[in-house]
Amino acid sequence: MSNEERIAQYKNQLETYLREFYEKRSNLPQSRLFEAMQYSLMAGGKRLRPVLAMEFCRLCGGDWHQAVPFAAAVEMIHTYSLIHDDLPAMDNDDFRRGEPTNHRVYGEAMAILAGDALLTDAFMVAATAQLPDPKDMAFAIETLAECAGSMGMVGGQALDIASGERELTEQEVIDIQTRKTGALIHAACVLGAIAGGGSEEQIDAAARFAEGLGMAFQIRDDMLDVIGTQQELGKGIGTDETKNTFVRLYGLEACEELVQRYTGYALDALEVYSDTEFLSELAGSLTDRRV
Amino acid sequence: MSNEERIAQYKNQLETYLREFYEKRSNLPQSRLFEAMQYSLMAGGKRLRPVLAMEFCRLCGGDWHQAVPFAAAVEMIHTYSLIHDDLPAMDNDDFRRGEPTNHRVYGEAMAILAGDALLTDAFMVAATAQLPDPKDMAFAIETLAECAGSMGMVGGQALDIASGERELTEQEVIDIQTRKTGALIHAACVLGAIAGGGSEEQIDAAARFAEGLGMAFQIRDDMLDVIGTQQELGKGIGTDETKNTFVRLYGLEACEELVQRYTGYALDALEVYSDTEFLSELAGSLTDRRV
Repeated sequence: MSNEERIAQYKNQLETYLREFYEKRSNLPQSRLFEAMQYSLMAGGKRLRPVLAMEFCRLCGGDWHQAVPFAAAVEMIHTYSLIHDDLPAMDNDDFRRGEPTNHRVYGEAMAILAGDALLTDAFMVAATAQLPDPKDMAFAIETLAECAGSMGMVGGQALDIASGERELTEQEVIDIQTRKTGALIHAACVLGAIAGGGSEEQIDAAARFAEGLGMAFQIRDDMLDVIGTQQELGKGIGTDETKNTFVRLYGLEACEELVQRYTGYALDALEVYSDTEFLSELAGSLTDRRV
Repeated sequence: MSNEERIAQYKNQLETYLREFYEKRSNLPQSRLFEAMQYSLMAGGKRLRPVLAMEFCRLCGGDWHQAVPFAAAVEMIHTYSLIHDDLPAMDNDDFRRGEPTNHRVYGEAMAILAGDALLTDAFMVAATAQLPDPKDMAFAIETLAECAGSMGMVGGQALDIASGERELTEQEVIDIQTRKTGALIHAACVLGAIAGGGSEEQIDAAARFAEGLGMAFQIRDDMLDVIGTQQELGKGIGTDETKNTFVRLYGLEACEELVQRYTGYALDALEVYSDTEFLSELAGSLTDRRV
């Protein structure tokens, strides 16, 4: 199977799962809420985090289908974070992936609730995962919540907002970005490994891969914000320009090198696994991505 | 031990747990977020849901301390829902329990994030519960998320918002209120019973008690909105007056009878337990409460 076919297979499985989850509930009266949730959930995107979860499950020797609930949970959390980030009180963005943002279509109140519901439902979905050892469920839920909550993603977003227009130190930028972007990638890789029945060594390797990839991904994102075009990204360029990014800290050229270094760090972590060609190519394609 | 002493013991244990949870994390840089979260979390309140969780754990024969993580999780979810409900895009309330609402103190962006973080951290806390059978963790997490998410509390809030100023049918009001208020009371009682190692019969009885108490509690709440005073409730009166309430459907007198009937339904469910004096008195005091 080619890498493209594998990605298509993972994405297809994820999207079928998400569609069926809400179709089963289409007889409930709160249809407007479900519509708002699915508007953002089914808006496409790379589905990077779900792909990572399913692939780490496979690498640990599991049937990758077992990781689908975790993959879906992480994608639901990623989607809620985009909806809330776009709100008028936050980044106040009108477009996302070339389409009107959730609150532009459904209003601010419903967008807040759609985000809240996606975040909560994510844990409902995650709890349905069939684990080789059911006792691992507590570890998986704790990891997911720690990566997404005050210690992780939301913590990073709060640091970013609290910093305002102030010029940040290198450490402060790293504090923000590892939480905002890195934490959820960490959750995807580690939960995939848990679903696959991975050993402690394999789970640790998944975490280190995520750490490297998360940094490479974020630095590349900052670079694209400078060198990209509105059409390529499908969102307004420069909304982050007053923010503290790696490009502002190091400059474009050094960022290019850093992306290579962090990608290398991620690939080194894969040593404990065999059959890592897919992940290597995926990491490489993210490094070079234009969007 | 008197009932007042038991309530004080439960509340004290809960508040110590919540305080320590965030004190342990006070060295993290996102201190403003933690401050905003604790502002609402430690603002007092009846702590009804945590008390129910701990008491059902005890009634099922467990050590009630085992239910503290679940009790804390439910209270964190309750608190986040108040923060988000008060937002300008939602009810736009300036005061809560006599104090300025979260967004009035910390700004709208931080209030959204404080809510998001409390909701997420709730699952992190819940996952640390030590259950008689660790395999029950999946059931507990699924129940908590189902009660709080699109099928439960957020679903009720979305129905309420989508209905706008329209006059609702009896069924529509019940659809909204059982989700908005009843669902989280259900989660508290059922998770308490799970933490106590309750049998299927005991868990089912906890669910029926919650159903009756949830309805009685909400109808009483609607009544207080009409007969209360601003001072007694510590929030603006009449912000819900254009909304569809049980008082508008049935009138005050019939509501009084309904509160008694639903409370009776709740108490009947307790038959499978012994030593239910505390819960009976608690249910009675909620029925007669002035605030």
